[in-house]
Amino acid sequence: MYIQQLIDKLGQDHVSQEEHELFRHSRDESPHDSVLPDVVCFPTCREDVEAVLEIARINNVPITPFGIGTGLEGAAIPVKKGISLNFAKMNRILDFSPEDMTVTVQPGITRVELNEYLKEYGLFFPIDPALDASIGGMIATNASGTTGVRYGAMKEQILDLEVVLADGTVMHTGTKAKKSSSGYLVTNLFVGSEGTLGIFTEVTLKLYGLPECTVMARCTFNSIESCAKAAQNILLKGVSILRMEFIDKESMIVINRENGYDFPEEHSLFLEFAGAERTVHQEVDIVHSLLQDLGCNHWEVSSNPVEMQEIWRARKELSFSFLQEEGIDEVGADVCVPVSRLPELLTYARQLINETGLKGGVWGHIGDGNFHTLVLFHPTIEGQRELAESTNEALAKRAIAVGGTCTGEHGVGIGKRKYQQLEHGQAYDMMKKLKQLFDPQGILNPGKIF
Amino acid sequence: MYIQQLIDKLGQDHVSQEEHELFRHSRDESPHDSVLPDVVCFPTCREDVEAVLEIARINNVPITPFGIGTGLEGAAIPVKKGISLNFAKMNRILDFSPEDMTVTVQPGITRVELNEYLKEYGLFFPIDPALDASIGGMIATNASGTTGVRYGAMKEQILDLEVVLADGTVMHTGTKAKKSSSGYLVTNLFVGSEGTLGIFTEVTLKLYGLPECTVMARCTFNSIESCAKAAQNILLKGVSILRMEFIDKESMIVINRENGYDFPEEHSLFLEFAGAERTVHQEVDIVHSLLQDLGCNHWEVSSNPVEMQEIWRARKELSFSFLQEEGIDEVGADVCVPVSRLPELLTYARQLINETGLKGGVWGHIGDGNFHTLVLFHPTIEGQRELAESTNEALAKRAIAVGGTCTGEHGVGIGKRKYQQLEHGQAYDMMKKLKQLFDPQGILNPGKIF
Repeated sequence: MYIQQLIDKLGQDHVSQEEHELFRHSRDESPHDSVLPDVVCFPTCREDVEAVLEIARINNVPITPFGIGTGLEGAAIPVKKGISLNFAKMNRILDFSPEDMTVTVQPGITRVELNEYLKEYGLFFPIDPALDASIGGMIATNASGTTGVRYGAMKEQILDLEVVLADGTVMHTGTKAKKSSSGYLVTNLFVGSEGTLGIFTEVTLKLYGLPECTVMARCTFNSIESCAKAAQNILLKGVSILRMEFIDKESMIVINRENGYDFPEEHSLFLEFAGAERTVHQEVDIVHSLLQDLGCNHWEVSSNPVEMQEIWRARKELSFSFLQEEGIDEVGADVCVPVSRLPELLTYARQLINETGLKGGVWGHIGDGNFHTLVLFHPTIEGQRELAESTNEALAKRAIAVGGTCTGEHGVGIGKRKYQQLEHGQAYDMMKKLKQLFDPQGILNPGKIF
Repeated sequence: MYIQQLIDKLGQDHVSQEEHELFRHSRDESPHDSVLPDVVCFPTCREDVEAVLEIARINNVPITPFGIGTGLEGAAIPVKKGISLNFAKMNRILDFSPEDMTVTVQPGITRVELNEYLKEYGLFFPIDPALDASIGGMIATNASGTTGVRYGAMKEQILDLEVVLADGTVMHTGTKAKKSSSGYLVTNLFVGSEGTLGIFTEVTLKLYGLPECTVMARCTFNSIESCAKAAQNILLKGVSILRMEFIDKESMIVINRENGYDFPEEHSLFLEFAGAERTVHQEVDIVHSLLQDLGCNHWEVSSNPVEMQEIWRARKELSFSFLQEEGIDEVGADVCVPVSRLPELLTYARQLINETGLKGGVWGHIGDGNFHTLVLFHPTIEGQRELAESTNEALAKRAIAVGGTCTGEHGVGIGKRKYQQLEHGQAYDMMKKLKQLFDPQGILNPGKIF
């Protein structure tokens, strides 16, 4: 019955029960089990979102927002079925102020679409979680990625969110001013909330000037610890690096094999510098001499855009490179720890994988203390999935024990729920109360975070 | 009776009803009416804070946290009397990790004390709201100040807060990792909450490397609009400036008169550049040629530390400079608007003051779109206070109308309560529900924000 109400409100073209649409909205890029929604809605404006929410509320039907499905923790999987709310038709730029370096967009626009639009103005939106993603999805998970070391995460980028709450209230969390001490600062309550507290319909983002000059450098070290120490030292030096990625030896072998490169098959750092031309070359020199003192090998600098793009593409598609074997599956971790604990944690991660006897890699945004593992398993071989997952569990618990977090950027979704109590302690109960306050019926993305 | 309970728990030395202590805790640096608390407590540890909260809860007595009393909106004034909770004895450094560039402190430490400790390690905590202030107070108001243009506000600096809630729960809002997508991001709910949602007992802050080189520059323009346009252009250029302050002609006259300077008595920009030596000098050159194109006059550069300190001191004490006349009082605004609206708003502010016929100045953190006015009045002359206050009101409303906020950094306290509904709309009701959830008895700093 509620599906007919949705059709009456949004129109037949904006409501789908076709099998391929249900399937597309049943999963994301994570290995979590897929669940088909009952129906997919394609709102075009805030009023549509309000209408869908009202129908969901009256009929007590769950709503799960869906960006473009590139999430890595199952946040967009409608585990309790109901409505999948797809934002593809809400991808407009509503207000662009180059003078203020801000843009107001609907949440369905992707970061690649946004940057395509911005580039002729010499501006860009820097957050880069490897794959393309909708801005709404990136807010919902507090995404960050390779440029986090300079720009932080999504939570640092948002001036204002328009949110529709479960009770139908439409509110703005901020203003278009750069800073404010007025009222409670509620924006970040919604950032990373995975659609469990309200649904975004508009967002004002900070923008940045496109750097005049970009230079990439790479080098290798004999040990994981040396890579981590090198990253620490670059940060202490105060160099405003744009990207600083670690890739372990085992992953470098896979990158070479799958992409036809011949990078040194050692633990590697990939660095990117960006800024005014003269400044950038100075920074490259500073970092080079620093890393030489720390014993780096194979230092190579490139400012060839094609070569740089190729290397970053290989890095971004690293997890796909691992998945070339027919029928193989993978589990991955996403811990973040204080930078001083990285040498210990990275080494521990490699050990854990080695002990399973399974194939896998370790890499990450080493300047943030955030890294990922990937462990391959054959779903048909008994015990392999459990073995692979045991590395995740051990790593998440160790990260929490050293003052870190079980998820640096992928979000809680389905896979990290079991660590929430451990990580947040008393705050976890408070978070539950917030969920209860905002969504007493439990219709907003149920089965996530808690 | 509850006062005896406080004495029994904390000891006689940590509870005071002496007249001078009650007086000291009845006011801050704002012109808001003072109110004496019934008692002042000096906790030394989290357990003391928990004990005071428990006694307050059982006896239904208000608690108002107090840092060092340099607030500008009356947030520390105990308008409903009860307990003033002074954090002076909770000023210890609990954990310092130079490798992670983080420090964990008790909230009573002041920013000057903290930086005194950090400087030998080559690190500093950059947020600088002119006067000294306790870290707890700075968090409670989401303070920012002159370095906001580079570092943002307090809300960008906090990795973790330990908070005691009204019901006695002790929770941590984050971890010591640089980023996280785990659970709800609740830290910023407490930042700027002025002690109305919970009481801070511990905080982990980000630190930064002390710049190798610092250079100051100043110049003047013929109009307020030109100053605002100049600031906008510096930002668009992507120069990572440390400070960028506007001071209007009228205020420059006062600065000269009260400090014995002979600065050009024109609308002025004071800039500070900081970083690696070569980079800084390049940035100075870039900005100089940019501002020449925009018609600046009296460009002067200084890297003499004594001269630089003197100038910043004069800037910081600007509002005191205005208050030299016996018996005079002042009201001040603290609006923040999108940078593109600054020329219009600054001009409007000057007009408003001129129309009153009262003396006053306009200055501010022009790179953030955040500026202040100060209007002098004689409390004994009928109608003058109302006239002075009318400029504040007009300015706050205009700021909100152009997409800005009624308070950029001072907080809501007492004076900005009346604009909360207008600025936040539907979000204001949600903020009230949050207050109700966290403090159903209304014992945490009642009479503030709402």
